[in-house]
Amino acid sequence: MKKAVVLLSGGLDSVTTLALAKSQGYECYAVSFSYGQRHCAELNAAKKIADHYKVAEHKVINIDLGEIGGSALTDNSIDVPKEETQGIPVTYVPARNTIFLSFALGYAEVLQANDIFIGVNAVDYSGYPDCRPEFIQAFQKMARLATKAGVEAEDEAEQVTIHTPLIDITKAQIIRMGTDLGVDYSLTVSCYDADSQGRACGKCDSCRLRRAGFGVAGVADPTIYRQNSG
Amino acid sequence: MKKAVVLLSGGLDSVTTLALAKSQGYECYAVSFSYGQRHCAELNAAKKIADHYKVAEHKVINIDLGEIGGSALTDNSIDVPKEETQGIPVTYVPARNTIFLSFALGYAEVLQANDIFIGVNAVDYSGYPDCRPEFIQAFQKMARLATKAGVEAEDEAEQVTIHTPLIDITKAQIIRMGTDLGVDYSLTVSCYDADSQGRACGKCDSCRLRRAGFGVAGVADPTIYRQNSG
Repeated sequence: MKKAVVLLSGGLDSVTTLALAKSQGYECYAVSFSYGQRHCAELNAAKKIADHYKVAEHKVINIDLGEIGGSALTDNSIDVPKEETQGIPVTYVPARNTIFLSFALGYAEVLQANDIFIGVNAVDYSGYPDCRPEFIQAFQKMARLATKAGVEAEDEAEQVTIHTPLIDITKAQIIRMGTDLGVDYSLTVSCYDADSQGRACGKCDSCRLRRAGFGVAGVADPTIYRQNSG
Repeated sequence: MKKAVVLLSGGLDSVTTLALAKSQGYECYAVSFSYGQRHCAELNAAKKIADHYKVAEHKVINIDLGEIGGSALTDNSIDVPKEETQGIPVTYVPARNTIFLSFALGYAEVLQANDIFIGVNAVDYSGYPDCRPEFIQAFQKMARLATKAGVEAEDEAEQVTIHTPLIDITKAQIIRMGTDLGVDYSLTVSCYDADSQGRACGKCDSCRLRRAGFGVAGVADPTIYRQNSG
């Protein structure tokens, strides 16, 4: 059975990615990050999902991105916007996916896994630069030069591959794909500003994209919204 | 004054790199990692060096690479070799420089710094893949696609640059360069297996490269070795 490392945030995209990797026959090793994020309900969701999918191992790695700051998600003095904004929003976390994928790369090397799955999306997304295909391609190229496994690999199949099965489909298509795979989206939390019970604000960028996705997909939205969440 | 992020391990190469960046007129922001390394004396050295060079800020970021394991430096059940070995040695830490540079990238973005200095060396080194020029070039290319700063940069000068001033010189040349810059190498710890007082074993790969470097450079070696350290 081929091993895969799957980045699991606890949101809608990452659970769909995990379900897909499992359906493709991978033995899945999930990795989540406790990075000082405002929405720690997401991490609780990740634990429930890892459990539900009986992953081979679930690592939760502590990294203090709050020490660096610079984002509404890691710095409590910056508010999460509740309306659409222009350009790359303040919820962007500097170098987040680079850092997350770097840890996944190290974990994959220790496991002798050549496959890393990440649920980034460059269609219905917040405009984060580290969700785009050109970033992922550059990361993969770098990753193949970075590791002992990469240096010692004898052919392409032994090289690390970053899988991004959701990168060019819409949120509604992701939800339909997940629904076909039997994903229970009530396990997930997407809100950037969820409360400790995982109830969503309904107004942030992530809530708006998620809600619209369920609408277009014609799938009932299982999200629990807080009162006054529009 | 241009800002630079300097990776500071506390070893000989990183202090030389910091001294060089300062001599080039950069305002230096040092970053070190507490990553479960065996040789925590190195971190104490980094703090002393940061203090000595009056850096603008010194971040020590906690990341638990021991959680991933797979190296003699982060897993106490694997011994540090005391003789030369073939190939990439067990002191190699999976994806370490990728992870370190990723944090430096995030930190640089928050500081609005375009320059990152790292003291990697591909001449007198342990054969780690993530010290080679091709890795650094690929990382820089990826970094320019990863960040908001990279997307919004209007020209090359605003893009992030990874500086590796030591990459193609010998250990002896590094020591001579540092000596010319007034570096006090007694502040540094290179040993992979230093004791809590920072005393070196004299036998590991890192000690061997360092000792030979001082010899060839004709500079007195200020390293304090433990008894029976050969």
